[in-house]
Amino acid sequence: MKFNSLTPEAIEVLSAIVGTAHAILPAATDAMARYTHDETEDLRYEPELVLKPENATEISRIVKFCHENYIPVTPRGAGTGLSGGALPVHKGVVISTERLNKIIQIDERNLQATVEPGVITQVFQEAVIAKGLFYPPDPSSRGSCFLGGNLSESSGGPRAVKYGVTKDYVLNMEVVLPTGEITWTGANVLKNATGYNLTQLMIGSEGTLGIITKIVFKLIPYPTQNLVMLAPFRDQEEACAAVSRIFMAGIVPSALEFMERDAIVWTDQFLNLNLSLPEDIKAHLLIELDGNEMDLLFKDAERVYEVLEGFNVGEILVADTDKQKADLWHLRRNVAHAVKGNSVYKEEDTVVPRAELPKLLHGVKAIGAKYNFKSVCYGHAGDGNLHVNIIKGDMSDNDWNNKLPEGIKEIFELCVSLGGTISGEHGIGLVQRPYISIALNEVQLRLMRGIKTLFDPHGILNPGKIF
Amino acid sequence: MKFNSLTPEAIEVLSAIVGTAHAILPAATDAMARYTHDETEDLRYEPELVLKPENATEISRIVKFCHENYIPVTPRGAGTGLSGGALPVHKGVVISTERLNKIIQIDERNLQATVEPGVITQVFQEAVIAKGLFYPPDPSSRGSCFLGGNLSESSGGPRAVKYGVTKDYVLNMEVVLPTGEITWTGANVLKNATGYNLTQLMIGSEGTLGIITKIVFKLIPYPTQNLVMLAPFRDQEEACAAVSRIFMAGIVPSALEFMERDAIVWTDQFLNLNLSLPEDIKAHLLIELDGNEMDLLFKDAERVYEVLEGFNVGEILVADTDKQKADLWHLRRNVAHAVKGNSVYKEEDTVVPRAELPKLLHGVKAIGAKYNFKSVCYGHAGDGNLHVNIIKGDMSDNDWNNKLPEGIKEIFELCVSLGGTISGEHGIGLVQRPYISIALNEVQLRLMRGIKTLFDPHGILNPGKIF
Repeated sequence: MKFNSLTPEAIEVLSAIVGTAHAILPAATDAMARYTHDETEDLRYEPELVLKPENATEISRIVKFCHENYIPVTPRGAGTGLSGGALPVHKGVVISTERLNKIIQIDERNLQATVEPGVITQVFQEAVIAKGLFYPPDPSSRGSCFLGGNLSESSGGPRAVKYGVTKDYVLNMEVVLPTGEITWTGANVLKNATGYNLTQLMIGSEGTLGIITKIVFKLIPYPTQNLVMLAPFRDQEEACAAVSRIFMAGIVPSALEFMERDAIVWTDQFLNLNLSLPEDIKAHLLIELDGNEMDLLFKDAERVYEVLEGFNVGEILVADTDKQKADLWHLRRNVAHAVKGNSVYKEEDTVVPRAELPKLLHGVKAIGAKYNFKSVCYGHAGDGNLHVNIIKGDMSDNDWNNKLPEGIKEIFELCVSLGGTISGEHGIGLVQRPYISIALNEVQLRLMRGIKTLFDPHGILNPGKIF
Repeated sequence: MKFNSLTPEAIEVLSAIVGTAHAILPAATDAMARYTHDETEDLRYEPELVLKPENATEISRIVKFCHENYIPVTPRGAGTGLSGGALPVHKGVVISTERLNKIIQIDERNLQATVEPGVITQVFQEAVIAKGLFYPPDPSSRGSCFLGGNLSESSGGPRAVKYGVTKDYVLNMEVVLPTGEITWTGANVLKNATGYNLTQLMIGSEGTLGIITKIVFKLIPYPTQNLVMLAPFRDQEEACAAVSRIFMAGIVPSALEFMERDAIVWTDQFLNLNLSLPEDIKAHLLIELDGNEMDLLFKDAERVYEVLEGFNVGEILVADTDKQKADLWHLRRNVAHAVKGNSVYKEEDTVVPRAELPKLLHGVKAIGAKYNFKSVCYGHAGDGNLHVNIIKGDMSDNDWNNKLPEGIKEIFELCVSLGGTISGEHGIGLVQRPYISIALNEVQLRLMRGIKTLFDPHGILNPGKIF
C-alpha cells in the first residue's frame, strides 16, 4: 500500500472535525509522547496527528477523509496492548477513543449494558456489580484498559476459564467502517441466526476492519461467594498436569492460574512481600472457586484438594477472608509488572489444549536451553494459555535481535503441533506478525486478506498489523 | 448467477467420485424423494443428483468440479431444517453428509471431542454423557438432526439459556471451501486471538461459505442433578413478564420455556394425555434448574417460586422424579409436531431482548387480529426466542399466499424495533429471505455479499439462500 503524508491542509481539516483542543500535533512533544507507544516492549512510533473525537459521527468524518486521501488511521484505546496493535507504524492519524467513555445504559430488565469503547474495564465491572450484575472478563490491565481494546484484541483474563472471554459477552456493536459508514453488526439478542456473524468477525480483528463506537454486552447475575486456594508444587510440569485433572474431576474453577517459581520470587521482590518461598517449591497454582453457597464451595475445594494430593505438593493455602483473597490476587496481578521491572523481555501469549501444558512448558525450557535464553512462565493454565516471558538479562543485542526469533519460532511451532496457536488473548498486532504463517495456512491468509480488502479497499485502517 | 445443468458426462464424473452405490439420480424416484424436502412447510425441490461422499477429499473433488463447471451444490445434513436451507432451489447436486457419521475422538483429558458432521446430535450427547461430560446444545430435533446442520443454522434449543448455543461449543472446524480447498478454520483451544475469526464466520452461514467436514467441540462436566417446574399463568403476557423477573432474582435456569394455551391443548390431543387443562389457564412456563446439589436446586426453586407468586399463577408443579421430568419434557418437545399435525402452518423464529417478550407477544396477537390469522406461540423464553406458528386453518389460499406475507413483515418489523431480529436459531434459508432487509441494512448486506463472493466466486454453494 502507498500512503500519503498529512499536508498542513489535511491537518487543518481533520483537527477541525474534533476541535483543535482535541487534536495533538508532533510539535506538542509532551502531549504526543503517550500516543507513541503501548505496553509492548520498548517500541515507539510517532504519528503525524492524534485526534480525540467525541462520537461516531466525528470518527466517520475522519475516516472518510483518510480513506479518500489514503492516509493511515490507527485506532487506539488505553494503550495497554501487548502486541503493538495500537502503534502507528505507518504514521498518519491516531484516533484515540478516550472521550467515548460513557456507560450509556445498564439494562437490569434484560441483563444487558450499552457502553462506549473508551470505558475502563474495571469501571464498567464495578458499575454493574453495584446492580448485582457481573461482567466477568478481567484482563490483568483491567484498572486501565478500555473495553474497546478488549474487544479488538479478543482479551481474556483469569475468569475466562469458567465464564469465557470478552467475545462471549458481546451481543452487538456499532462500528465505523474503514470507508466511513456507521453500522451496527448484529442485534441485542442472545441468539442470532440472521446472516453472517459480523459481530464475531469484527471482534479480535485488532482495529483493522472497523472502529468500535458502541458495544452492547450481555451480563449475568453476580456470584456472591468465592474462595481461593494456593497450591505449591515441587515440580512445575506436575503443576501443569494437575490443571486438566481438576476439570476431569468435574470442577470448573472461576480461575486457575499457573505461576512458576521465578514469577513469584520476582513479584515478591517487586512488592516487598518477604514471602520466603521454600527452596523446593518450583511452581504454584492459584485456584478460585465461585458461586452463591459457601458450603458448596468448600465441598468443591475438598475435591480439588483430593486431586492435588495426587501430586507432589507442599502445604495448600485456602483463603476465605477478603484480605487473604485480595493478597493472593494482588500477587498474581503484579507478576507482569514485576517481570517488566526486572529486565527487558518479550512476552509470548502461547495457548494449547490444557492437557498439553506440561509438554508446552517442557518444550519452552528445552528451546530456552538450546538458544540460551531464560524464561519466566505464568498464565491462565485452565485455558491452556501460558504467558512465556523471555528475559533478555545479559543476552547480547545481536543474539536478542537475530538469534532469539528462531527460538520464538520454535516455541510457536510447538504450540501449533500440540493443537494450539500463537496468541490466546493478546493478538498478533505488530510483534507476532512475522510468525503468523506458523499458525495460519495460505488458504486462511488468503481469506483473511480478502476480508480486509473488502472492508478496507484502501488499506488505511491500522496498516502493518496481523498479516 | 448463471448455472449449468448436469450433462450425462458430468453425472458420470461426479458419481465416480463417491462410487455409483452412493449416488442417486432423479430416475430413482423413491430413493430421491427424501432429498427433495426438509422440515420446512410443504416445500419440494428436486436436485439433478444426490451424492453421499465418505470424506473431505471426495467432497473437495465434487466441489472443485462443480466450481469449474458452474454447477450448484447444496449441502445437506439430516434435512430437519425449518428455513429451507437444505433445499436445492437451483437444482444441481445435493451433497448429503450422512456417511460422515463418525465420532472420531472424545478427549477426556482436554474436555474436547472431534466429530464428523453427520453425527446425530443426541447420539453425540449420549456418547459424551457416558464419560461424565456434557454437550449442552439440544435442538428439539436432536433425535434426528445432524451436528453439521446445527452448526450451519446456529442452532439453539432449551438449554441455550444457561449454556449458550451451538456456536459457543465449537473450537475448530475442517471445511471444504466452495473452490475445493480443504482447511481448518482455527485451533483446538479455548482462547484464540490469532487472526480473524473464520470459525464463527462459518457457523450460521447456512452452507453458503463452505461444507463442514470435521468439528472440534469443547465439552463441560455433566451436571448430575436437576428439577423441573411447570407454572400455569392466567394471562399469557404475565407469563412472558415473569421470565425476565426470574433472571433479575439472580437465577439462571438451565431451561425456561414458554407455551401458550393452544400449544399445550394441541399437544395434549396429539399425545392423548388427557391433561384437562383448567379453562382459565392461558400459558405455561416450564423451568428447569440444574447443578450438582439437590439442596441448592430446591433453594433456587424456592426463589423462583417467590418470583412467580408475584404473578397471577395457578398451582405450580415441581417435578423431581425422572418420570415426572421426562413427562414434562415429552410434552414440550412434542409441541412442534402437534402444531404441524394440526394444520398447514408457517413458523417464525422471532427473537427479542427477553424483557420485551410481553410486547412481542401482544404485538403478534394484534397483527394476527389485523390480518385475520391465528397463531400458536411457544419457545425459548429465557433467550427471548419465541416461535410464532401461524396457522392456515380455514384461511383462503389467496390470503395465505398474498396477504399473510404483509403480516409476517409486520411481526419482523416489531422484532427489530424491540432490539431483536428475525431468526434466533432456525436461520434465514429460503423462506425468510424475502424479509432479510428488515433485519439487515444495505451496509451489512454489502459486506455479507462481499464475503460470499470472496469465498465462492462462482456462487455455486447453496445458491438462493439468506440474501
